[in-house]
Amino acid sequence: MRTLGGISLASILAIALAGCDTAEQAPPQVEKTQQRFTLKLAETWGPNFPILGDTTKQLAETVDRMSDGRLKITIDSSNKHKSPFGILDLVKAGQYDIGHSASYYWKGKDPNTLFFTTMPFGMTAPEQYAWFYYGGGVELMEEAYARHGVLSFPGGNTGNQMGGWFRKEINSVEDLQGLKIRIPGFAGEILAKLGAKPINIPSGELYTALERNTIDALEWVGPGLDFRMGFHKIAPYYYTGWHEPASELQFLINRRSWDQLPSDLQEILRVAMRAAAYDMYARSYHENAVAWAMIQSEYPNVQVRTFPTSVIAAMRKANDELISEFAEADPLSRQIIDSQARYLAKARTWTAISDQAYLNSLDD
Amino acid sequence: MRTLGGISLASILAIALAGCDTAEQAPPQVEKTQQRFTLKLAETWGPNFPILGDTTKQLAETVDRMSDGRLKITIDSSNKHKSPFGILDLVKAGQYDIGHSASYYWKGKDPNTLFFTTMPFGMTAPEQYAWFYYGGGVELMEEAYARHGVLSFPGGNTGNQMGGWFRKEINSVEDLQGLKIRIPGFAGEILAKLGAKPINIPSGELYTALERNTIDALEWVGPGLDFRMGFHKIAPYYYTGWHEPASELQFLINRRSWDQLPSDLQEILRVAMRAAAYDMYARSYHENAVAWAMIQSEYPNVQVRTFPTSVIAAMRKANDELISEFAEADPLSRQIIDSQARYLAKARTWTAISDQAYLNSLDD
Repeated sequence: MRTLGGISLASILAIALAGCDTAEQAPPQVEKTQQRFTLKLAETWGPNFPILGDTTKQLAETVDRMSDGRLKITIDSSNKHKSPFGILDLVKAGQYDIGHSASYYWKGKDPNTLFFTTMPFGMTAPEQYAWFYYGGGVELMEEAYARHGVLSFPGGNTGNQMGGWFRKEINSVEDLQGLKIRIPGFAGEILAKLGAKPINIPSGELYTALERNTIDALEWVGPGLDFRMGFHKIAPYYYTGWHEPASELQFLINRRSWDQLPSDLQEILRVAMRAAAYDMYARSYHENAVAWAMIQSEYPNVQVRTFPTSVIAAMRKANDELISEFAEADPLSRQIIDSQARYLAKARTWTAISDQAYLNSLDD
Repeated sequence: MRTLGGISLASILAIALAGCDTAEQAPPQVEKTQQRFTLKLAETWGPNFPILGDTTKQLAETVDRMSDGRLKITIDSSNKHKSPFGILDLVKAGQYDIGHSASYYWKGKDPNTLFFTTMPFGMTAPEQYAWFYYGGGVELMEEAYARHGVLSFPGGNTGNQMGGWFRKEINSVEDLQGLKIRIPGFAGEILAKLGAKPINIPSGELYTALERNTIDALEWVGPGLDFRMGFHKIAPYYYTGWHEPASELQFLINRRSWDQLPSDLQEILRVAMRAAAYDMYARSYHENAVAWAMIQSEYPNVQVRTFPTSVIAAMRKANDELISEFAEADPLSRQIIDSQARYLAKARTWTAISDQAYLNSLDD
């Protein structure tokens, strides 16, 4: 299924219109609108992965229906392309036309891509969508990915991710010392600065590692995906989130693949991605609500905890220090960090007097 | 521009393909895909109304581009059709193909339509989108509108609406006695039960009415639209919201107009409406954040207040009583009310441990 380099639009067929003698006789406009395209998509997720994988399926289906079959998208999951965290490279090289992944997976390769998934202590999903589409976020993301010859689009939000499953309570920064926790990426670096021992463990071994005390805690996603892993059966404390308040996936598109599409199919693809991304946020919300209700009713011993103020403060300090290093290392990183900080300050004062005030007023 | 009754697809043109002798020689499939359609849309808002009116413009533009000009939408604002609160009737009668309005405007005509905009003490926007698309909400809305021969779709969210501008503080239920407040609809009925005097005043006279003490308070929307009205210059107290936590507009489509579209254009229209609706939520968030930052910096005397617990409790009690009356009066109303209550209970426990816990953990 994989094309190796070069033009990767798999099949461009000029369909002769029935009723016309030959396609060549039709003027360019008509011929163009009848061309059929197949784009190959590589996703980070395995086959039939819930929520995240539903997003690429929805994209393929809506694009097919809107284009009356002129634009097809074939999906290769990670079992096929074997490169779950190398989606940017696959799209950049033209081996795939489209990628569906999370931008922060290749921060080691290009630090500027780190900021477009989510940031610790960063924006919530509604704040971040406002930033992406009306606050300059998408333009900065486009600038970062243009250097790779790749177009980028928001690709779906998981909503606020939970802080993870812990076998013991965390009451102070001292309790983090030597804590063996599975937590990847930037959040792991923050916890390492505070004395914890972030460990990477393949997802299939996580349950056993937690059960056998190989690790003391682990971060996964949220109830909608966590409950399928069964962690609630062996870890009594479920900590609220701080490190991924609004993880947004990305659609990446090879520029040559994009440029070969007629403008109507480009627009169909653009709007379908936009709707699929937003839908993933609603779907995540739904799945989290349903799964959390289920966990609460079937496992009443599970207790929700929020890290104490002193721990939150220490995490924020470590986060600020790490972010400063990124800002100093690259001018575009600084620009993105500044844009996010300015926007967050503005959006959060609105959140405070709208949803947050509303929710809190009903708790009294 | 207005067609009176009957088939309201304004112009159905079978375009003969260049290169073909006649359109009649082309098989039905090809002829269909080349047909051009113009749908007439009536919106509640005046011309160039911010945010809400941007949504219909966006819809028309994206549909045009995705269909390569085969589907056009012309927009009549309220100055044209003169029936801002009669959009359902215009679409039902086929005078317009599409309407853009808020479902609760015709609760007097059909109480079942009340519930699809927002409800006092109801769901936030992320909770409500999850209910609409994954929790059965859209199906109930479709059932309510099918009785009118009309299709219905979510049409954009304003986000949490503010409780309004007050010249005096509200410290108890007694302070509501005789309070002259501009607040329409269901929220007005709740306040009337608590002794307030809801008054309806045309929007153009609101500023003067508040300035001259003809009214003591008024509810409008949120900072993004309120600041254009100037209320912050004459009312020092800005109360947080309780009555419209997530006002969702609706797109209504005449069934005959819809049925005449080929399936690809139906899908283009459906996905464009979905994206435009979500985008309105992000745009509202942005406009509110920007306007609130501006009000805060230029009018530091404006003070945000939340109604005290006793007032919130009295409002909730009055709201529950009114809702019960609706549930008793109509079986479909009861079904919708039950669905919303069940979903809210589930979604809110998730909100509590995700965004709410996250936001509150940063306030300490």
